[in-house]
Amino acid sequence: MKYINNADILSYEKQYRANLINCLSGFKGAHLVGTADGNGFSNLAIFSNVFHLGANPPLIGLINRPDSVNRGTLENIKKTGVYTLCNVTEAMKSGAHQTSARYAHEESEFGACGFTEEWLEGFAAPFVKESTLKIGLELREIHNLAINGTHLVIGEVKHLWLDEQYLSADGFYDHAAAGSIATVGLDAYHTVNSPTRFEYAKTDKPTTVLK
Amino acid sequence: MKYINNADILSYEKQYRANLINCLSGFKGAHLVGTADGNGFSNLAIFSNVFHLGANPPLIGLINRPDSVNRGTLENIKKTGVYTLCNVTEAMKSGAHQTSARYAHEESEFGACGFTEEWLEGFAAPFVKESTLKIGLELREIHNLAINGTHLVIGEVKHLWLDEQYLSADGFYDHAAAGSIATVGLDAYHTVNSPTRFEYAKTDKPTTVLK
Repeated sequence: MKYINNADILSYEKQYRANLINCLSGFKGAHLVGTADGNGFSNLAIFSNVFHLGANPPLIGLINRPDSVNRGTLENIKKTGVYTLCNVTEAMKSGAHQTSARYAHEESEFGACGFTEEWLEGFAAPFVKESTLKIGLELREIHNLAINGTHLVIGEVKHLWLDEQYLSADGFYDHAAAGSIATVGLDAYHTVNSPTRFEYAKTDKPTTVLK
Repeated sequence: MKYINNADILSYEKQYRANLINCLSGFKGAHLVGTADGNGFSNLAIFSNVFHLGANPPLIGLINRPDSVNRGTLENIKKTGVYTLCNVTEAMKSGAHQTSARYAHEESEFGACGFTEEWLEGFAAPFVKESTLKIGLELREIHNLAINGTHLVIGEVKHLWLDEQYLSADGFYDHAAAGSIATVGLDAYHTVNSPTRFEYAKTDKPTTVLK
């Protein structure tokens, strides 16, 4: 095994360090965040640092970078108080990556990257028609993390569309069957195989596959 | 597509809701967090809500649940100021899931679940010998998120071991080749296929595969 310490990391060239450190947290979901500015302009941006925060109430967190990338997303969320989170399938991956280019505010990534807006009446952010899991969130809190200028955005799930054939009787949603892909680092997209599910772990018996 | 709203979610039975909402954020890395209490007792716990927070300095965030599960991890991190994050491979998955059972403080999940402690001199938390990516972190901040009682733990990467054969010349680490698995929800583990990497996206050209 190769050993690397903190001083090595700090000494690395910027892009090499960004690639390496972004990879350390492993596989991540690939999510498209849809927003609008309230004046007719929509925005779509790929985010991978999205995580479960709680089920009751249903809360999802996402990290918005401090720099100007995805600034439009955060401004729109603050303006309208809502945003969407839609999954990325294999067929959508190159378009989803393309949303990370720096389009002008007046040019929507939906059209530029090959996606179709879907609107829910009374909800001021667009969903992605092509996705197989679509979440509408209402902003609850933004924490500005002084340690490095990133923003933790916390939203509550208000609307949800999913494909019933991938939803198990116990509430599990099969992302592999739904075609969702995983991402690593800044630019890698992976297809994923069917899961093994385990029963709730107990100290008095070994882990058992859930049938 | 099946439509579900916030009121539906709140009305669901607890375990169904936990399964469903935990699945919404899609694929996640599976990580073993290693800690010790400073009195000779080690602890190992699986975490999936781990995310990249920044590359310079190299920061990783993790969410610790509010309830008593994984309480030992958080107490140990507060006590010693350090912890480890090691990846989970296919061969390790049932043992990694088993760490979520509620072992007594005096019984280490390392031994109970089939893992081997690896110590770095002067660093007060154990690494997992079986992993193919091992990270030693120093606690920087804990944010108690009042919205639902969870804890955001932010650590800085101080030590890192990785397998050089999976490290690209540009800093990308190939988790699929390193055998890392992805997880979804509370109990699903997935093997993952080789990535497609894309070039940095620009508005004046379509997304291109990185060779």
